[in-house]
Parts: sequence; C-alpha cells; structure tokens
Amino acid sequence: MEQVSKAALGWAARDASGHLSPYSFSRVLRDGDVTIKVLFCGVCHTDLHIIKNEWGNALYPVVPGHEVVGVVTDVGAGVTKFKAGDTVGVGYFIDSCRTCESCSTGHENYCPDLVLTSNGVARDGGVTTTTTTQGGFSDVVVVDQHYVVRVPASLPPDGAAPLLCAGVTVYSPMVEYGLNVPGKRLGVVGLGGLGHIAVKFGKAFGMAVTVISSSPAKRGEAIERLGADEFLVSRDTEQMKAAAGTMDGIIDTVSAGHPIVPLLALLKPMGQMVIVGAPSTPLELPAYAIITGGKRVAGNGVGSIADCQAMLDFAGQHGITADIELVRMDYVNTAMERLERNDVRYRFVVDVAGSLGAAA
Amino acid sequence: MEQVSKAALGWAARDASGHLSPYSFSRVLRDGDVTIKVLFCGVCHTDLHIIKNEWGNALYPVVPGHEVVGVVTDVGAGVTKFKAGDTVGVGYFIDSCRTCESCSTGHENYCPDLVLTSNGVARDGGVTTTTTTQGGFSDVVVVDQHYVVRVPASLPPDGAAPLLCAGVTVYSPMVEYGLNVPGKRLGVVGLGGLGHIAVKFGKAFGMAVTVISSSPAKRGEAIERLGADEFLVSRDTEQMKAAAGTMDGIIDTVSAGHPIVPLLALLKPMGQMVIVGAPSTPLELPAYAIITGGKRVAGNGVGSIADCQAMLDFAGQHGITADIELVRMDYVNTAMERLERNDVRYRFVVDVAGSLGAAA
Repeated sequence: MEQVSKAALGWAARDASGHLSPYSFSRVLRDGDVTIKVLFCGVCHTDLHIIKNEWGNALYPVVPGHEVVGVVTDVGAGVTKFKAGDTVGVGYFIDSCRTCESCSTGHENYCPDLVLTSNGVARDGGVTTTTTTQGGFSDVVVVDQHYVVRVPASLPPDGAAPLLCAGVTVYSPMVEYGLNVPGKRLGVVGLGGLGHIAVKFGKAFGMAVTVISSSPAKRGEAIERLGADEFLVSRDTEQMKAAAGTMDGIIDTVSAGHPIVPLLALLKPMGQMVIVGAPSTPLELPAYAIITGGKRVAGNGVGSIADCQAMLDFAGQHGITADIELVRMDYVNTAMERLERNDVRYRFVVDVAGSLGAAA
Repeated sequence: MEQVSKAALGWAARDASGHLSPYSFSRVLRDGDVTIKVLFCGVCHTDLHIIKNEWGNALYPVVPGHEVVGVVTDVGAGVTKFKAGDTVGVGYFIDSCRTCESCSTGHENYCPDLVLTSNGVARDGGVTTTTTTQGGFSDVVVVDQHYVVRVPASLPPDGAAPLLCAGVTVYSPMVEYGLNVPGKRLGVVGLGGLGHIAVKFGKAFGMAVTVISSSPAKRGEAIERLGADEFLVSRDTEQMKAAAGTMDGIIDTVSAGHPIVPLLALLKPMGQMVIVGAPSTPLELPAYAIITGGKRVAGNGVGSIADCQAMLDFAGQHGITADIELVRMDYVNTAMERLERNDVRYRFVVDVAGSLGAAA
C-alpha cells in the first residue's frame, strides 16, 4: 500500500538541553485519519520531562505537545465522525491496541500499548512501527478519528486546550470515584495547572471545595477568583486538625515530594484520595493511615476518550476553561524555563496557528 | 438506675511484660445485653500488641481476646435477636456511637467512637464511661445484641472463632471491592492467620487464587492443602515479572515491612490492592506505580456487623473455618511467645470453657 504523507513544521528538541527549534518532518495519512490544523497547544509538565529526557526515554528529535485544539482540514476516506471545519481536540494519546481488557472496557488510557501523542511509537494497521509520534507544537497533526474529540463551540479554543490533558486528568477520577455529587466535600491539593481546573469542576458539580496548599499566598486566588469554599495551609497543623475527617475525596495534584498522612487524615472514613501528581520520590504510606477508616488511595492517568469527550461537553455546559497565559511559539523556550520554576498561572498555551509561521 | 453486674473470671495482663494470669472482675448487664458463656477465643496479633503495650495505649489490667464463640446463657429484657442456647460470636468491637455517618451507612466498624471488645472504653446509654472493656479470655462476655452475630450450626465453634476478626477482615474488602467474582484473579500476600482464610474465601467465591509469599516452603501448604491455584515467591523477580498485570485484586496480609511496588505490578490496570496487615514502618508508594494503570490501594479494618454475619453465613455454606491449634488457657503465655515468632499454623484458639476453670 502506498503511503500518503503530509509535510509538517514543528518545534522540536534535539537533545537533553530541551531547547526547542523549528523542525520539518512528515505525517503519515491513513484512511481513518483526521487532519487537523493546530490552533493552540497547552504546555504540560510532561512536555518538560520529555524534552529534557528526565525519564530517560526521549526519542529525539521530539516535538512536544499533547493538549491540542484545532480545526479539521481534511479527513480520510474511512472517517465518519468528523468533517472539515470541525473544532476538535487531541489529548495525551492517539492510539491504543483496541483489543486488551482496558481497551475492551472503555479504559483505553490504561492500554499497555498506548501510543502517546508525542514521544510515542506509532502503530500502523495494528502493528507497532518504529515511527516516533510528534506532538502538537506543530502546524498540523494527523490522528485516527477514534482518538479525536469534539470541542464545544461555546469554549474559547485557547482556554480549552489544557482541558485535553490537565482537565481530563482531574475530571475522570472525580467521576470514577463519585466525587461529582452535589454537597459532597472535595479537597484539592495544590493550586497549579491541574488543581485550578479541579476546583472549577468541583464547584460545577455542586461540591464544597477546599483548596489545600503549602502557600498561604494562594488563599485569595483560591477563594475569590476560583470560587473555592475553604482554604487550608497544609503546614498549619491546627487548621489541618480542625478539618480532620471532613472530606469525601481529595485530588492530590502536587508533583513535588510531600507527606500524605496529614491529607489522608482530612478524609472521612472510606474516603478516596486520588494521586494525579507524580513526585519523583516515593510517597510514604503508613498502613495505619488507611486501615483506620478504611481509606483509599488511587492513581489516575488522564482518562479515556469517552471521559475526555464527556469532560469537554461538561466544560462546555458550565463554561469551564483553564486560566492560561497565551504565548507565541518563539517564547516557548522561556515558557519551559518558567514552567520549571512553577512561574505560570496556571497553564501556558502556545498560539501555534498565530505564531508558528512567523517564528519559523 | 441500679446497675446489675455479673462476676467474671478472665486472664489479664497487668503490665508491659504481657504476662497473662487469672483476674476476677465484673461485667455490667443492661437491658439490651446478651450474656454469653465463652467456649472458644482466637488469639490475634492485636492481642499481643495490646498486652505488651506496643501501641502505648494499654489499659491494665487488660483481658485480651476478640474472636469469641460462645453460647447465650441469658438475655436482657430488651433483647429480641437472641435467646438462651444460641451459638453466637463476638468480634473486634462491641459498640459504636450509632449516629455518625459510618454508623448510619452500615459501616460502624469505622465509627470514630468504636468501642473495642478488649482494651476499649465502654459506653453506657450512649455516654462514654471510664470502664475498660475486657475481652474473650474470660468465662463470660456481655454484649449489646446489635453487636453479636449468629454462628451457623454447621461450623465447629473452635475453628469458627478466628473468623470473627481474621475472617471478616479479609472477607469484607473482598466483597466491598468486587473480589468475589468467579473467574477473577486474586492474589493473597502472606500465608498466615489472615492469608490462609483469604485463600479459602477466594476459592469459595470461585476465583483463581495465587499465594505470594517470601517463603518458598509454603508452596505445598498453599496449593495442596489450601487449594490455591498458583504460588509465587515474592523475591523471585522472574516469577513475579511473568505474573505482571494478571491480577484483579490483591489482599496484602503481611504485617512486616515489605516492598509493595512488585505487588502493585501484579495488578491489572485499575486493579485493587487491599492492605490488611499493618507493618510498623511506612509502605513506600511511588506515584508512578499507581498512576500507570490507575491502580488502587485501600486499607481495611475488620468489617461491619452485617459483613461479619454475611461472612459467617457464607463460611457456614462453604464449610470454611480457620486452621487452628487449640490450646488450653494455661498455655496462653507460651502461645503468645510462639505467635511473636510466627510459630503457628495458622491461628491459636483458646479452649476457654474447657480449660479456664482448671487453669485458674
């Protein structure tokens, strides 16, 4: 079978310096693929890990970006779900094996053969190839229709971009673990890219939301701007003690090492903590902290395509977007430096369509 | 109101030596109480912690024992559930507040004001008193009818005794987390008092059961005697690797410090680990080990009274009892020493009715 491909221009890192610069490559087009002109792409901490090879698995040259919002420009002959002109999104992965237990039960985000949007290894006709996947810091992405989601017209596409990864990462476990019930009490640990969206979803679900942060300075943001009901300084043992046993669930978004015992103490009996941040050092989990009260700790990695679509639809109904700082492509290296020191409120989004050509 | 009481003879520890010796005391009788002649009482590791004050909360003199099977000899005027002659059981707790969220939702085992069967603080008419509760190493126990369970006639009362704590501790989370489904794959870590019962329940539920142990010598016991399907030596990295991603759930009964990452790797995506053993050092939980695969770790503390009754009924239907070593009361100090070095297969049970009088 002849392979059809399309020229693409992206910004790639070539080595562990992580420095991004223009990179020309090509994308393969298959019958089931949707060709998407990238409008905006969010910048996730995972992008930083990848371009600097902090996980030791970088496949250089690598074009990062997996929080893509764009417009369909063309579709393959087998595409039925989308047409040219549709506003769509692409998240953390663009394919999976489609046959394993996870794929068969609608949890393809946990497929062992998940193909990541960036720095992944592509599949062709179900066979894993040696082609590295390249992400959304590029003018065009080409993705199988089943891994593309629809972005509601009511959402601004720039603010919607971070929902494709950060949004579904917090929304999906909230629904999975029943932390979407009006009147229930939700704790959100960490007020960054993930945390600020978790607060918004929690409030939209009608929950009582408490932000728990190590930084007292975030109180105003949490309560006045994001609408959280309460704010706890995690190092204030008196405050934490007073709130013990009050929360139905906690979404822990902190990616630096931190003690979780004081957080587990905030949970009601049989309460659920969800870990979505990934500290590089192991969390310390004394057995008594979960045996007493029958408490629960779960990890969560993004969400399924169905979760992602449900999340976007819900966000569309409630007008939820990420709070972003929109940057041009030629600012992206500075943005990565700032992201590394958490100097962003709350998510960088690259104006790809509006600045890639000029920058290149 | 005049207080009616009944003379009792038990074996108590007086200090942190943990040495047990005869002790005369009295038990208060209230309208809703069931008076139970103790036949047999299991010996749980918690008893050892308490009598030696290893948790720093011993209320000496303390009569241990919370795996009680006995016969009802008398009931208070308000008792409707039991009558003299009934064979009944008493487990880890004998009262709770009856009003909190846990009590109201049938999870009274997680009530913050739970009254433990031994070394607890009694309540009277809903008011916490200063009376220390005394356990089942005694000729008689007196317990509110709502915290007493019925022991099926088909079960031998000595082998049934350990079900009251060890049994419900493994049964309850298996049902709670859907690890009671025929064909699902269950891992049981540690083949001791709790583990060997978990294997029996797993098999009775129709599951494929794998025992995971640090001791290769337990293979024969696990497979030939207890009916496990497979056996893994936890330190054999090749064996463990070959079994990666195959289990729906794991019950971890090990009370010594141990790595849980290799165990989490055995779980399928979204698999559930339940911690029922309580190592004194914190478990190390790297976030990636649960984020990858969306895995879950829960603690479990015994079970509700309803769980306990359901467990006993299930055990009665399937002829499940603990494998025990029946000892006389005057052997109990030796039994405690042997328990401390895990020298028991799999649970000591004291023949209270048959040996307390002679021993005292």
